[in-house]
Amino acid sequence: MTSRARRAARLGMKSLLVLFLFLAVAASAMAGTVRGTGDLGIVVERASGRVVIIEHSHRSRIGAVDGLGDLSHASAVFSRDGRFAYVFGRDGGLSKIDLIEAKLVRRIVQAGNAIGGAISADGRLIAVSNYEPGGVKIFDAESLDLVADLPAESNGQRSKVVGLVETADGAFVYTLYDAGEIWIADVAEPARPAIRKFPGIGAFPYDGVTVDGGRSYVAGLFGEDGLALLDLWRPEAGVRRVLSGYGRGEEPLPVYKMPHLEGVTVAGGNVFLPAVGRHELLVADVRTWAEVARIPVHGQPVFAVARPDGRQVWVNFAHPHNDTVQVIDVPSLKVAHTLRPGKAVMHLEFTPKGDQVWISARDEDLVRIYDPRTLAELGAIAAEKPSGIFFTARATRLGY
Amino acid sequence: MTSRARRAARLGMKSLLVLFLFLAVAASAMAGTVRGTGDLGIVVERASGRVVIIEHSHRSRIGAVDGLGDLSHASAVFSRDGRFAYVFGRDGGLSKIDLIEAKLVRRIVQAGNAIGGAISADGRLIAVSNYEPGGVKIFDAESLDLVADLPAESNGQRSKVVGLVETADGAFVYTLYDAGEIWIADVAEPARPAIRKFPGIGAFPYDGVTVDGGRSYVAGLFGEDGLALLDLWRPEAGVRRVLSGYGRGEEPLPVYKMPHLEGVTVAGGNVFLPAVGRHELLVADVRTWAEVARIPVHGQPVFAVARPDGRQVWVNFAHPHNDTVQVIDVPSLKVAHTLRPGKAVMHLEFTPKGDQVWISARDEDLVRIYDPRTLAELGAIAAEKPSGIFFTARATRLGY
Repeated sequence: MTSRARRAARLGMKSLLVLFLFLAVAASAMAGTVRGTGDLGIVVERASGRVVIIEHSHRSRIGAVDGLGDLSHASAVFSRDGRFAYVFGRDGGLSKIDLIEAKLVRRIVQAGNAIGGAISADGRLIAVSNYEPGGVKIFDAESLDLVADLPAESNGQRSKVVGLVETADGAFVYTLYDAGEIWIADVAEPARPAIRKFPGIGAFPYDGVTVDGGRSYVAGLFGEDGLALLDLWRPEAGVRRVLSGYGRGEEPLPVYKMPHLEGVTVAGGNVFLPAVGRHELLVADVRTWAEVARIPVHGQPVFAVARPDGRQVWVNFAHPHNDTVQVIDVPSLKVAHTLRPGKAVMHLEFTPKGDQVWISARDEDLVRIYDPRTLAELGAIAAEKPSGIFFTARATRLGY
Repeated sequence: MTSRARRAARLGMKSLLVLFLFLAVAASAMAGTVRGTGDLGIVVERASGRVVIIEHSHRSRIGAVDGLGDLSHASAVFSRDGRFAYVFGRDGGLSKIDLIEAKLVRRIVQAGNAIGGAISADGRLIAVSNYEPGGVKIFDAESLDLVADLPAESNGQRSKVVGLVETADGAFVYTLYDAGEIWIADVAEPARPAIRKFPGIGAFPYDGVTVDGGRSYVAGLFGEDGLALLDLWRPEAGVRRVLSGYGRGEEPLPVYKMPHLEGVTVAGGNVFLPAVGRHELLVADVRTWAEVARIPVHGQPVFAVARPDGRQVWVNFAHPHNDTVQVIDVPSLKVAHTLRPGKAVMHLEFTPKGDQVWISARDEDLVRIYDPRTLAELGAIAAEKPSGIFFTARATRLGY
């Protein structure tokens, strides 16, 4: 072989080696991460327009996705397969996030001002409830293409929409704030939505949730006491008023401070509701909605969240008592423990079988993780001004 | 360049091309399948020692794993992340299956004769209930290494173990068939398990399940009427007998035909139980266990399974009525529909939000999929003599 030939062969070998290394790297990048998604979740970093992706098997941070806009009051739902999060921002942004690849799949700004959303029971549709323009928009969960626009128009006026949840029967139910109506939209044929309207439910319903496995839809009323209840198994029976002791109380709250009903939880056959403006948790029988007890607590409750087996209810509080979380013992309906996770506790989320509870302490830039049985702190995750915490197990539960 | 040099260079290029193609193929193989696991599940092919892996977003078969031994009465639980299934075989086999890669990770034969298992609330431990030798063995969920052996010995005799489930507090609860006892094993320190024993619960408890979100543990009694109930929130209150109308009935069944209690379901505040030996479904108030109704049905019920929102209960039947499934309307407690999915209906499983129900028709070699709302058949999956159907959403629910 001549020296030129040797050089050419050597060059070939060198190229081979470079190519080999390149392809090996490419292969490992292409491999992505093959992993289960049942233990994933997101933490909203409200001030940064970003979500942190976490996993709760080993309690670690596995990624982050930013560029999500205004995430005040942001909430999220998850795709049927648990791979994607849909994040609803206050600015009308709807973002689809791939939790495995930690990347933004698509982001649209679908309204001027929005307040949460839902995913249909079959996982095919994402619905968003909008303040401006008032109504519900429905998107294909795969592409985020618009498939239906449902203006909330009553008596010639557009209404803000709140309390949007999916039903087991494939519909969406939501509440018109200005008009005081509950609507059930059947979107089996998105081009021809069939809407059932329940007017006159009371003044200024500010939020709505389903309890009792998705059976009962309740709307809180800003303008008067009590809750409006619609039995989704028998909507023909209409809306009735329950729990007349619940509501504005002696001193009506200013309307600009919208409370939320997501704080309602069911445990041991009772509904636990944060009393409005009082240092109390209200307890009502989930069958009759008769008041069972009022539990004195540390401050004005914000979220009441049941451990998945219903044995405990954990509660956080409004400013200036927002450094504290209390644990209600459900059988005795008494406060059993008081914890101080840190400044500005914003949200609480249990793992699906209740072996951990994650608590965001905004002004500590931390999410603290506790064992609900021993109250031991199991660990913490760093996050910038964390607010909402959402785990993929929500994809398996109606109304979450 | 000489011709030798050109040939060497050409050879180099050729090698490069071959290597490139090889690496491209290797890369795609290494990539595995990046996908969510929230919509996965398995169908047991009882006669073939094999499970079929399915996904319910698009209702398709995505793989199969064989070599699992005797799968009569096989059941399964899922890892916390939804990636792995643990299959319990009658022959004492415990198999860990990777649902994404469709491969057997490990299989051990841990006893001579076994009857199901459970996964701890934190996902770290797999427990198996054994007939021979009677007791419970506990394995590390990651490695399947044995971490604790709990012989079920009472008064010097080993007892068969049935009705093994995990509790929210990290323990396992199970029933000793021969001794007539319920045991709660706290395995927080597997080397020093702490066992609480509840003796004298009644003659020959043949199975046990938790209902009411994991709060109440009930054991069926073969030797007498009624059920043994243990409130896991107040175990110190002891075991009490409920529903005395439930049990052997007028004609005691032969012991070789072990019935199972997994057929019990809760919907709309009531427990639905297959009556033993009668063409009836028993309905009891989940709070008081007082009998509410007896619903006449097509045959001897085997499984009663609630749609996740509790609006319907679907029931299959024992031979010779096992070609039929009936749908109970929960508000009216009446049979609303009768379907004929085919010969030898073995099992029913709902998708987590109830938009589909999958039904195995063993002698049709088919799993049929229905829309519970319209009763339309949405599709079918071919499987050899299918029996149990298990979806990964079970990983998010206590007692499944």
